[in-house]
Amino acid sequence: MTNTNLQDYSHKRYNILTGEWVLVSPHRAKRPWQGQNEAISNEKRPSYDETCYLCAGNTRINGEVNPNYTDAFVFTNDFAALQKDSKTFAVNDGLLVAQSETGICKVVCFSPDHSKSLADMTPKEIEKVVFTWQKEFKDLAENPDINYVQIFENKGAVMGCSNPHPHGQIWSQSTLPNEVDKKNTQQLNYFYKNNSSLLGDYLAQELEKQERIIFENDEFIVLVPFWAVWPFETMIVPKKHQANILDMSAEQALQYAEAISVITKAYDKLFNTSFPYSSGIHQAPTDGNENKHWHWHMSFYPPLLRSATVKKFMVGYEMFGSPQRDITAESAVKMLRDLL
Amino acid sequence: MTNTNLQDYSHKRYNILTGEWVLVSPHRAKRPWQGQNEAISNEKRPSYDETCYLCAGNTRINGEVNPNYTDAFVFTNDFAALQKDSKTFAVNDGLLVAQSETGICKVVCFSPDHSKSLADMTPKEIEKVVFTWQKEFKDLAENPDINYVQIFENKGAVMGCSNPHPHGQIWSQSTLPNEVDKKNTQQLNYFYKNNSSLLGDYLAQELEKQERIIFENDEFIVLVPFWAVWPFETMIVPKKHQANILDMSAEQALQYAEAISVITKAYDKLFNTSFPYSSGIHQAPTDGNENKHWHWHMSFYPPLLRSATVKKFMVGYEMFGSPQRDITAESAVKMLRDLL
Ligand SMILES: O=P(O)(O)O[C@H]1O[C@H](CO)[C@@H](O)[C@H](O)[C@H]1O
Ligand SMILES: O=P(O)(O)O[C@H]1O[C@H](CO)[C@@H](O)[C@H](O)[C@H]1O
Repeated sequence: MTNTNLQDYSHKRYNILTGEWVLVSPHRAKRPWQGQNEAISNEKRPSYDETCYLCAGNTRINGEVNPNYTDAFVFTNDFAALQKDSKTFAVNDGLLVAQSETGICKVVCFSPDHSKSLADMTPKEIEKVVFTWQKEFKDLAENPDINYVQIFENKGAVMGCSNPHPHGQIWSQSTLPNEVDKKNTQQLNYFYKNNSSLLGDYLAQELEKQERIIFENDEFIVLVPFWAVWPFETMIVPKKHQANILDMSAEQALQYAEAISVITKAYDKLFNTSFPYSSGIHQAPTDGNENKHWHWHMSFYPPLLRSATVKKFMVGYEMFGSPQRDITAESAVKMLRDLL
Repeated sequence: MTNTNLQDYSHKRYNILTGEWVLVSPHRAKRPWQGQNEAISNEKRPSYDETCYLCAGNTRINGEVNPNYTDAFVFTNDFAALQKDSKTFAVNDGLLVAQSETGICKVVCFSPDHSKSLADMTPKEIEKVVFTWQKEFKDLAENPDINYVQIFENKGAVMGCSNPHPHGQIWSQSTLPNEVDKKNTQQLNYFYKNNSSLLGDYLAQELEKQERIIFENDEFIVLVPFWAVWPFETMIVPKKHQANILDMSAEQALQYAEAISVITKAYDKLFNTSFPYSSGIHQAPTDGNENKHWHWHMSFYPPLLRSATVKKFMVGYEMFGSPQRDITAESAVKMLRDLL
């Protein structure tokens, strides 16, 4: 173990990718919980739901009919937060500063089967989703107005997902969002100084220590980062230094799909429930630069803490101070590893 | 109106206090909601609950008995995230960086009356809470190991509050949490450059425009900041430049209490429910420096978006990209102002 103090005493850990800190209070997991319980439905869904606007053959709210798709299916978000043909303007009025933001938002259905989630799909089926992400990323990257592409999934009602049909989203835009900007700066600074990949060097350390790794295959590592915020936060990282998902070969895509399959299955076993999370891929901007400092990765932020119904609330102190966690990254690793 | 484009098109606004951006998508409020509804209880609570560990005269989990307090009552958190006598250490192992964090966590009961919240209390009663915050802040500030004091409240089960008895918390510690660190830097840079208060200059602009102000008295302004993230986020700011709450006179404390009373009452009326939120006071570090660049303020971050049961989910895009909001700050102001 890195340092036994980390398992026993309050401390903060540094996130090398964002430059921010997380407060860790190992002893706090002992406090009793009298607060809100989440309503989690473990009901089995049908493979087809005629009221679902994502199922194949059904009509969406704008009148469009979904095709009879057989693997992944993509369409432009009917209620997009970013719009392509939006007006361009800027406000620079003293301390009031704003600027227009244009973009394209898409929905990616992972499977026509309404009853499934990534955890129920085979690596071969997930591979199709990965290929779809690659294709969409490529198309958007070629658009001169799009400089960043955020691929993500909200899974579970507790994560604000309004439809249980397996799907994720892609929001792409002209500027870098906050979190990406932080990771861009940290990786760039490190790359200039060391002429090597920040995440690559971190992986080397983790491979040597073997304290936070949950799973690895030839091409990918699944681990709980040293600075994880959410109780069971994990990260999938390619072993080779790659700036974005287009650097991934077809063989690597299958290994990536295997990594996604392994961690999502472990999650579902942890509290014996379809495990909610938000996941996202952080990768190089699509601004036409080489962005050699970027090492792409996928993170899972699951809210559950103690059981299928008790989540971690990121509220008062976390909103005004720093994120705070009650179990250490190393205890989370042990629990997840035991489920493989 | 500052700029009509801001009411119609997607844009991002700059937060002068943190240096980060919020994505605003005004047209998005129109999308239908099929997702999770919160279970909000509007049941009237009794004034005394024998099972409540915060009610006067009751025994807490550690065996201590609460006194028969009559206004505010403070005790050290029985399950503190930070501990005073914790060990001191540092980890600097390549890219694994951590350091111990010590501190003192307290619970502040606002009233012995279990049925109340700040919204149900008079300004005179709230003033007692303000005096208590001042006293606690002073005590902690005098402790050489404490360099920052975070006062906050989590209100409502949806905000992770595990006991409906009116209360808040104080977490104090040896280093600056992330959010405070950002605000420290932004205010310091501005002060060096302009020799004036960032928030003071911002207030002057808002007073001139009268577009985002909800309420003012002689000493305080309640407004929706231009860069608000949460749908009905508000901020209470002293008109005079004050680094921390000890700069506030007894007369000013009553005006501050009035401002708290006005905004919490408006919140309760908005969706006809005891309005959940996390609130917090950001103020100068207690590191012994003058910190003249600091202008203290209190923010409210309420999660509700459309009704007592539909909240805004800060999930996928928000976690991986930037916070995103669906109604503009200016529409929120109009709705809140109408309730005064
Ligand atoms: O301290 P409490 O009320 O038990 O806990 C609540 O507030 C804390 C501080 O914001 C959070 O860390 C917890 O997740 C939340 O449930
Ligand atoms: O796009 P959806 O699924 O309707 O909405 C969900 O994801 C969005 C992106 O993270 C969030 O802004 C919404 O608050 C959430 O409910």
